[in-house]
Amino acid sequence: MYSFKNDYSEGAHPRILSALTKSNLEQTEGYGEDCYTKKAIALLKQKIERYDIDIHLFSGGTQTNLTALSAFLRPHEAVIAPSTGHILVHETGAIEATGHKVISIEVSDGKINTTHIKAVLDAHTDEHMVKPRLVYISNPTEIGSIYTKNELEQISQLCKINNLYLYVDGARLGSALCSAENDLQMSDLGILVDAFYIGGTKNGALLGEALVICHDSLKDDFRFHMKQKGALMAKGRLLGIQFQELFEDGLYFDLAKHANKMADLLKNEISNAGYKFLTHSPTNQIFPILPNWLIEKLQVKYLFYIWTKIDSDSSVIRLVTSWATKEEAVVAFITDLKDLS
Amino acid sequence: MYSFKNDYSEGAHPRILSALTKSNLEQTEGYGEDCYTKKAIALLKQKIERYDIDIHLFSGGTQTNLTALSAFLRPHEAVIAPSTGHILVHETGAIEATGHKVISIEVSDGKINTTHIKAVLDAHTDEHMVKPRLVYISNPTEIGSIYTKNELEQISQLCKINNLYLYVDGARLGSALCSAENDLQMSDLGILVDAFYIGGTKNGALLGEALVICHDSLKDDFRFHMKQKGALMAKGRLLGIQFQELFEDGLYFDLAKHANKMADLLKNEISNAGYKFLTHSPTNQIFPILPNWLIEKLQVKYLFYIWTKIDSDSSVIRLVTSWATKEEAVVAFITDLKDLS
Amino acid sequence: MYSFKNDYSEGAHPRILSALTKSNLEQTEGYGEDCYTKKAIALLKQKIERYDIDIHLFSGGTQTNLTALSAFLRPHEAVIAPSTGHILVHETGAIEATGHKVISIEVSDGKINTTHIKAVLDAHTDEHMVKPRLVYISNPTEIGSIYTKNELEQISQLCKINNLYLYVDGARLGSALCSAENDLQMSDLGILVDAFYIGGTKNGALLGEALVICHDSLKDDFRFHMKQKGALMAKGRLLGIQFQELFEDGLYFDLAKHANKMADLLKNEISNAGYKFLTHSPTNQIFPILPNWLIEKLQVKYLFYIWTKIDSDSSVIRLVTSWATKEEAVVAFITDLKDLS
Amino acid sequence: MYSFKNDYSEGAHPRILSALTKSNLEQTEGYGEDCYTKKAIALLKQKIERYDIDIHLFSGGTQTNLTALSAFLRPHEAVIAPSTGHILVHETGAIEATGHKVISIEVSDGKINTTHIKAVLDAHTDEHMVKPRLVYISNPTEIGSIYTKNELEQISQLCKINNLYLYVDGARLGSALCSAENDLQMSDLGILVDAFYIGGTKNGALLGEALVICHDSLKDDFRFHMKQKGALMAKGRLLGIQFQELFEDGLYFDLAKHANKMADLLKNEISNAGYKFLTHSPTNQIFPILPNWLIEKLQVKYLFYIWTKIDSDSSVIRLVTSWATKEEAVVAFITDLKDLS
Repeated sequence: MYSFKNDYSEGAHPRILSALTKSNLEQTEGYGEDCYTKKAIALLKQKIERYDIDIHLFSGGTQTNLTALSAFLRPHEAVIAPSTGHILVHETGAIEATGHKVISIEVSDGKINTTHIKAVLDAHTDEHMVKPRLVYISNPTEIGSIYTKNELEQISQLCKINNLYLYVDGARLGSALCSAENDLQMSDLGILVDAFYIGGTKNGALLGEALVICHDSLKDDFRFHMKQKGALMAKGRLLGIQFQELFEDGLYFDLAKHANKMADLLKNEISNAGYKFLTHSPTNQIFPILPNWLIEKLQVKYLFYIWTKIDSDSSVIRLVTSWATKEEAVVAFITDLKDLS
Repeated sequence: MYSFKNDYSEGAHPRILSALTKSNLEQTEGYGEDCYTKKAIALLKQKIERYDIDIHLFSGGTQTNLTALSAFLRPHEAVIAPSTGHILVHETGAIEATGHKVISIEVSDGKINTTHIKAVLDAHTDEHMVKPRLVYISNPTEIGSIYTKNELEQISQLCKINNLYLYVDGARLGSALCSAENDLQMSDLGILVDAFYIGGTKNGALLGEALVICHDSLKDDFRFHMKQKGALMAKGRLLGIQFQELFEDGLYFDLAKHANKMADLLKNEISNAGYKFLTHSPTNQIFPILPNWLIEKLQVKYLFYIWTKIDSDSSVIRLVTSWATKEEAVVAFITDLKDLS
Repeated sequence: MYSFKNDYSEGAHPRILSALTKSNLEQTEGYGEDCYTKKAIALLKQKIERYDIDIHLFSGGTQTNLTALSAFLRPHEAVIAPSTGHILVHETGAIEATGHKVISIEVSDGKINTTHIKAVLDAHTDEHMVKPRLVYISNPTEIGSIYTKNELEQISQLCKINNLYLYVDGARLGSALCSAENDLQMSDLGILVDAFYIGGTKNGALLGEALVICHDSLKDDFRFHMKQKGALMAKGRLLGIQFQELFEDGLYFDLAKHANKMADLLKNEISNAGYKFLTHSPTNQIFPILPNWLIEKLQVKYLFYIWTKIDSDSSVIRLVTSWATKEEAVVAFITDLKDLS
Repeated sequence: MYSFKNDYSEGAHPRILSALTKSNLEQTEGYGEDCYTKKAIALLKQKIERYDIDIHLFSGGTQTNLTALSAFLRPHEAVIAPSTGHILVHETGAIEATGHKVISIEVSDGKINTTHIKAVLDAHTDEHMVKPRLVYISNPTEIGSIYTKNELEQISQLCKINNLYLYVDGARLGSALCSAENDLQMSDLGILVDAFYIGGTKNGALLGEALVICHDSLKDDFRFHMKQKGALMAKGRLLGIQFQELFEDGLYFDLAKHANKMADLLKNEISNAGYKFLTHSPTNQIFPILPNWLIEKLQVKYLFYIWTKIDSDSSVIRLVTSWATKEEAVVAFITDLKDLS
């Protein structure tokens, strides 16, 4: 059984394991104050082209989101997020558990726009309601779509005018930035958003997300919040070494490109076979609509999620590729799909 | 500079890195539902000699404590802990951040006893006060002391009678269980306490703590709490593989024994050199009282914490050994100390 | 200017002030352990026809909701509520501030049904999502509609089967129970729901809501939660005396009937004048759709809320009546409306 | 049985009930936006001699404390309080329930000083510990003592230098300010502290505390926090009318003086009878040490709390007087005590 279930089925890229092994017996400071973490942060700043930002390394996405958002907001302040947002559906109420409401905006393509945000602001008028204070988006979204530079600029401008923080969940940021349809640079994020994170776990690391804090007023005492939420790792070097390896010479982007290439291959051939897709996804998650009998046959040899039902005859499946996806597995899948069709 | 600052200065035991490398490209389920995690849990159950317990793997101690305690307690329930307890002083109010008061018991040797607990119960009489519901202890304590089986039995019995949960923070549990003065078995913990965790980070793992839930009423829906607190790791195999390696053939205990042996060596020779200690510690942290001039000279070649001041002439330092501590470094330290004295 | 803005514009029914004055200098126990509170609770139990329930008196609705729901739920458990629910829109995220997500169900008439609840249950399948555990409804709803006995029975049954608690916000419960279209008794609530509250503030009291806990497992230690949330009033007698007065001889229902009668009068005559309503409301809040020019003219003499815009020419206004609404004011309003039309 | 148990055994001062009755049928705005509340706030500003402060009326002390402190602090910030502080012992962990640790300073006379605060600051050095940010004191303290102007000035200065907020719980502030030994004015508080509250419930009101926010940075969005914590009362006029009555012509101070006078009378005569006191209290709570046999005899005719045991023969009782304490009851108590002695 070959798995297209997600992009965290394998361990880490071999270079990361090598780097860990090589440095293993060196003694370093704990809690992210080691030389590897410092080096990784310096590399990331260079990539983002800003040196006045703060960067902190976390072990996972939910942890990053909950630590950041609870640190950024006062008790009565709320988050605006698209209905498909990871924090809304797949983090077991982690943000609410820190005391903050997440206001859901119904979307079909995973993306929110300035009209959505204005509507929320208009509806929240006094102290009997929460105060919207932060806009949460994911890039790519949870259904594979990406924001254009222009879309992000518009959201950013609206946020600035309305005293809203803009936060980007970049669990799969590599895939977005390496998408054929992308026109955003890492350096644009450093200018347009107040904080974002660069996902490592889903792009070659054993674990690790790098939170970038751009807005000055969000920086103070941030390590206190990390420690309080259990996010300050004793052997912080584990994260530093990985991000150093990923960003030293572009490995991060190479891995994302491979994942996207594998997804494109799947997408094109499934399309050629005559099937349609639930969403337009130029990243490493695709959502083909297949007849149920075909899905059942594919399930004999491949693992993937059934995303949703379309009607009594067909369903949407999710196929996820990663840095580790083997081209021969993709080819085999396509062949099987065509043969079975 | 050789560091005796803590037991997380190096990476992982080489066997762990080998195991990670070996399994690296296998595809597994995410979020701790992989075969390695299952195997690790089975090994731990065997070691604890109970098969009706639940075991969950975490990435760090603060995360384990805050997830467990907030899952176990209702909003008005409080924790009783010794004043030296890690949750009281070194976790940035992580437990309070989940809404629970931690009642501090002043202790000098790091250990609480039944008299202490009874005093807290007597002082909490009605709904104008929190309701003490869980006793938190560490074994070994944060200052190196350990609980005897008899002491733990007495606390356990008192807790059962008074409807208090008993929780053991085992960040350095290996060192306690392998101490020359210890008479507790892992299997005793499974009987005497309601939940405890077995620390991996400070005993050879890259990261990892195994939470053991013994009391039935604490088990329900526990993975929801983990996810909500950001503790469910996507590549959960990273924890499973490490605990499997540590418990497959006793590596965990071998490593702890080495750490203790190195600490004993330091302790005996420092004692032979005529110095006293702040606490009686039969585990891998020792607290010698040294003249300040000597401390300053040692600091030229060694890293360690100044624990506390004794008077204008002398201070307590903390020396920590680990699975990775080199005997030659210990010998060198002792030689230097004696030469300088 | 006469106000139809809400049902808390005046003080208390004169009998309540008399009762407060009469008992004023008696010495009683504090924190709700006085004889008046005990008497009030006994009267309420009699009215509900259950003697195995717990009743606690609060000073306001938001306080009641947040104390009850946070006491009833574990950290990962969530509330299901209609999109118009008071806790969703008008309590500044009070429930989320205690750590719990409120899942919103889009409704047009303020009411949720079993289909809605089942859909939420179907969508929440594992530990990556919150666990729906409590259904929150208001009766009457925030837009004036009421639940029939049959509707409530169906919801109740579904909740029991699915291990969901059912909670009714009764801020205006008197108006619902005294509505011409109502077929529910206070005693039905005691059987069908797990907890509900009987609103006093909006029906003649200075302040006060009576929380009724029917389900045994929700009763333990409840006063601890009240104290922790600042809801245990030192001079608890203030609440006891009021509820005693309201329930001694049916005053509570008389007041609600008057409010409903005034609303009916408004509704019928506005309808006669040819206007329509946003919702079907048989209780003390009505929502006529009026041309904007008429609204502006009415605003010269009357206070009321503009609820929402319909189109460029017309809007919905909210008119609220209460125990204190004067019939002559209602008549004057109707006359003015007709004269102006 | 005459009660000296507390200062909230009776209702309200008759003038308050009259004022409530007189205004009862007027229609006003809800949620503290009525004319009475505005008038009360204006009177309080005049008394404090500052017009740039914000004042909010609450229904009780625990509610005031928890709303204020949780609004003022970020998640990692902690409160410093004396071990006898109301928030530490008698509010069921209300502050911790909002996520903040309360650091306890052991005191014998209820008061903390600059040495205490400095010690806490010295012990909290990095992000592994909470960040002390607010000093909570009560005046009078929970055991009747009061702060001198000089003591408060020293604490205030230390707080300013160290970026700590200073907060005064004034549940019985009237009694402190009217004490024969007091040299503080209400206007001094406006200058020396960042926020404080003026207790009404224990000095003649049915319920009500006035929170005064002096520090600009603590003012923003405060009503959001009130609503979120259930502290925004629908009929806010109830609080406004009472504070207007209390501060229109000095009634608040007259009532406190009476309470103090009654306490002095008790204190002097108990002292004359040869008994000692646990603490030096110049306010309305006194703590005589009496033989147990005498306590038992007094309990036949009087209600009061046994505060603590001294030895097997004697205990401390607490006697509390109030605006409502009858001089003849005090005389009777003294007579009985002397007769029984």
